[in-house]
Amino acid sequence: MNIPPDSLAHLRTLTRQFAQARDWAPFHTPKNLAMALSVEVAELVEHFQWLPTGADAELDDAARLGIRHELADVLLYLVQLADKTGVDLHAAALEKIALNAAKYPATR
Amino acid sequence: MNIPPDSLAHLRTLTRQFAQARDWAPFHTPKNLAMALSVEVAELVEHFQWLPTGADAELDDAARLGIRHELADVLLYLVQLADKTGVDLHAAALEKIALNAAKYPATR
Amino acid sequence: MNIPPDSLAHLRTLTRQFAQARDWAPFHTPKNLAMALSVEVAELVEHFQWLPTGADAELDDAARLGIRHELADVLLYLVQLADKTGVDLHAAALEKIALNAAKYPATR
Amino acid sequence: MNIPPDSLAHLRTLTRQFAQARDWAPFHTPKNLAMALSVEVAELVEHFQWLPTGADAELDDAARLGIRHELADVLLYLVQLADKTGVDLHAAALEKIALNAAKYPATR
Repeated sequence: MNIPPDSLAHLRTLTRQFAQARDWAPFHTPKNLAMALSVEVAELVEHFQWLPTGADAELDDAARLGIRHELADVLLYLVQLADKTGVDLHAAALEKIALNAAKYPATR
Repeated sequence: MNIPPDSLAHLRTLTRQFAQARDWAPFHTPKNLAMALSVEVAELVEHFQWLPTGADAELDDAARLGIRHELADVLLYLVQLADKTGVDLHAAALEKIALNAAKYPATR
Repeated sequence: MNIPPDSLAHLRTLTRQFAQARDWAPFHTPKNLAMALSVEVAELVEHFQWLPTGADAELDDAARLGIRHELADVLLYLVQLADKTGVDLHAAALEKIALNAAKYPATR
Repeated sequence: MNIPPDSLAHLRTLTRQFAQARDWAPFHTPKNLAMALSVEVAELVEHFQWLPTGADAELDDAARLGIRHELADVLLYLVQLADKTGVDLHAAALEKIALNAAKYPATR
């Protein structure tokens, strides 16, 4: 099968190889990955905490780069946590969108 | 262009349509989305906080379903925050893997 | 010794008795308490995520009560985590204020 | 009135003076303080994320000092957020202990 270039499955493959090459499996329990995920999210939040809205005009280049890196870190831990808990992240997201659509009806 | 079925670009399109149909744009500042992301991550962490490791044998079906839904919520807010900050999430993840590979050399 | 009525030492005594009466010691590792603390903080953050500033006029009574309870939960886990890690919370706070005063000189 | 030396009221006074001397009031909305609190908690969590339990034997001196400082930071933001939302932190904690006692009956 052809793995699409921006797919979550592709990132899963890369993160598996990365962790394996470093013998990180013993550390990568779901509990620990959930903690690490929360830490990365906070590093993202940190960029926005004193700003009015976080719109681009409020950011400088250092903040833009930091946000880009932290978004990536969050995604990489998320992919790994989903992998360890056997969740197909994309399928779960589609399910959740359907549930949310029922919970919050469209207003227009 | 053909959007691959499990791509992040696909989810970005879906979340844009979802928010637009509910007039949520005024609420979806980067700052607010970062906060919402941190709240969803905590709902994920909550499933693991009193468990030894979070391995599958420690979970019941309710926890498994909750984890699946929370992983999805985290991904959906992450996709929206990346969209609002103009970050290509997949490209950023690939860049970060390359940076991490330089920072943490493989041990085997 | 007379324990002052609003002291942190008083809360430490109460939380110790509470956990002991429920045999919660095996769950109350520093790691788990840190996770629980982060979950409670997120429940606090949740009240503010879509509000402009969180000022009192933006809140209703349910939010005010929720915030009060979540602030309490955060404090109770913080006291327990400090207890388990052998940190005198009040002394540490005074030290940190002194460090911050050196780091951020007063502007008036 | 005599302020007891380790009281939360004492810390509230100190944090008010500190913020006032730096003209930080415009930044210290409840929303922003809640975000800052979550960031500090994550810096605390970071010390424990890869450890088995966070027991003292698993820590080195740098981690012990870091934990002490982060616990202090969390307390200082918590005191400020309670101040801005008009919550008496100690009274709220006593109320929450009573609620928790009803919710989780003692097992011995």
